[in-house]
Amino acid sequence: MQNITTAVIQQIMTPDKSVNLAKSKQFVAEAAHSGAQLVLLPELHATRYFCQWETPDNFSLAEPLEGFTAQQLSQWAAEFKIILIGSIFEKRAAGIYHNTALVFNAEGQRVGFYRKMHIPHDPGFYEKYYFTPGENSLGFSPISVGPLKLGVLVCWDQWFPEAARIMALKGAQLLLYPTAIGWDIHDTAQQQQRQTDAWTTIQRSHAVANHLPVLVANRCGFEEDPTHTLAGTQFWGHSFIAGPQGELLQQADAKTEQILLAEIELTQTETLRRIWPYFRDRRIDAYDGLLQRYFDAP
Amino acid sequence: MQNITTAVIQQIMTPDKSVNLAKSKQFVAEAAHSGAQLVLLPELHATRYFCQWETPDNFSLAEPLEGFTAQQLSQWAAEFKIILIGSIFEKRAAGIYHNTALVFNAEGQRVGFYRKMHIPHDPGFYEKYYFTPGENSLGFSPISVGPLKLGVLVCWDQWFPEAARIMALKGAQLLLYPTAIGWDIHDTAQQQQRQTDAWTTIQRSHAVANHLPVLVANRCGFEEDPTHTLAGTQFWGHSFIAGPQGELLQQADAKTEQILLAEIELTQTETLRRIWPYFRDRRIDAYDGLLQRYFDAP
Repeated sequence: MQNITTAVIQQIMTPDKSVNLAKSKQFVAEAAHSGAQLVLLPELHATRYFCQWETPDNFSLAEPLEGFTAQQLSQWAAEFKIILIGSIFEKRAAGIYHNTALVFNAEGQRVGFYRKMHIPHDPGFYEKYYFTPGENSLGFSPISVGPLKLGVLVCWDQWFPEAARIMALKGAQLLLYPTAIGWDIHDTAQQQQRQTDAWTTIQRSHAVANHLPVLVANRCGFEEDPTHTLAGTQFWGHSFIAGPQGELLQQADAKTEQILLAEIELTQTETLRRIWPYFRDRRIDAYDGLLQRYFDAP
Repeated sequence: MQNITTAVIQQIMTPDKSVNLAKSKQFVAEAAHSGAQLVLLPELHATRYFCQWETPDNFSLAEPLEGFTAQQLSQWAAEFKIILIGSIFEKRAAGIYHNTALVFNAEGQRVGFYRKMHIPHDPGFYEKYYFTPGENSLGFSPISVGPLKLGVLVCWDQWFPEAARIMALKGAQLLLYPTAIGWDIHDTAQQQQRQTDAWTTIQRSHAVANHLPVLVANRCGFEEDPTHTLAGTQFWGHSFIAGPQGELLQQADAKTEQILLAEIELTQTETLRRIWPYFRDRRIDAYDGLLQRYFDAP
């Protein structure tokens, strides 16, 4: 496979799953009609971002790997003949729930899934309460779709160069990040700008370090905290598609639902790795420290 | 130490070491007079970039750790009462030469050195011929200057998130990259732009991933290949100082010799690590793959 036309969906979510899925389907259909061969949806796109607060009731939102949302995704992939990457709140067993990305091929078969490995937990993003971290035995491993190897990661994973690197060393040809990230509305405009820039920069850097294209799908829109404990989250959009030098091919604004579309030359990865041969020079003899939590002062 | 005023020198080098050192001294003096407490010089600032071609004669440019250039740096640090980070072509023994960064405290004492660990080698940057890679026993370790811990790395190291991460896990408070990088003048303006953007992005990303300020000092100016084998290198300047969210505090242009000056709040690192606690969440149980060269397809 030399070239692939990719699409990223940026969407506003509502409390109504059927509304969200109907809108996602419409976006996926439009992307496919515009020539997309691969479509990436945002993290947890079937629901509003329920991790803003902690209640046992929210576990009722979870679905099994073969549940309703997964069935929908499978149907869309087959109907529109595209590779589709979606995201679900997965119920694996009573007491074990994951934040899971699913990959379907253009025949609608699920060819793999990825359970989020790095789990955040901070005010308004209480994910450690809901999600059991993915096991090492499964992630970080690319998912094969025919000849294509997808490095699917999820949201918080985006801040960790380690995850992207391991995917690249295992042969990933694209890095994909469904995500749900936003601003605390009490932050200043300057703080918000710095946060969004940092987020774009770190993900572009995974492209640079590994010479891989990067796709990022975020939600947008404001979602209030129904417990009125926090001020709510303004999800910051800015979804993007970057080429294998981190160059921005497409980027969304902060607030608009939209489809980003970009054709990617997969052969550029090898061209760049010949010019900038980082993989030849990694000091694997000197990286043991990466397996440490911290080096305490003596 | 709460705040520190830092300076980065961007300089054009000539074939004459005494000219280069005299100019560096002038810049260091100006930076100190402007309030800098710490000054970073570019990579191999005493000479032109001799790695453009390969000849045994060039090993004559190397100096011991206590050689002439190091003595000069020591004197300037003491005279101007600043922490000074310089760079030499080090002769360690006949047949063992390194690309070495030196750190002097404000009394002019050498408090540590770093031997470049990742060594490039590609047309016009034939460093594997000249430089023995630094040993694991020495790098990657921060250098202490009083209460301050400096994560000093050199040029090609900048492309490797692994190096920055290990420095951060060992308590570095600043990341510093003396560097010598430029364009092949046959590349298109668009290719040159993508290269410079990638270079800025990857180094800003080390700030983002680790919540550490980053200082980068590059040379500028055109240096021809005296063997006339290659077209020569236009060193691309763009030296910069970034804050701990990767925000650009100062950035130079492509061609002008100059001093960048920025005050850095060292306490911002902990503030940010409380808000974005990546270090809590690193999956050290799942990072073994980072010690692999590659995972060959089965």
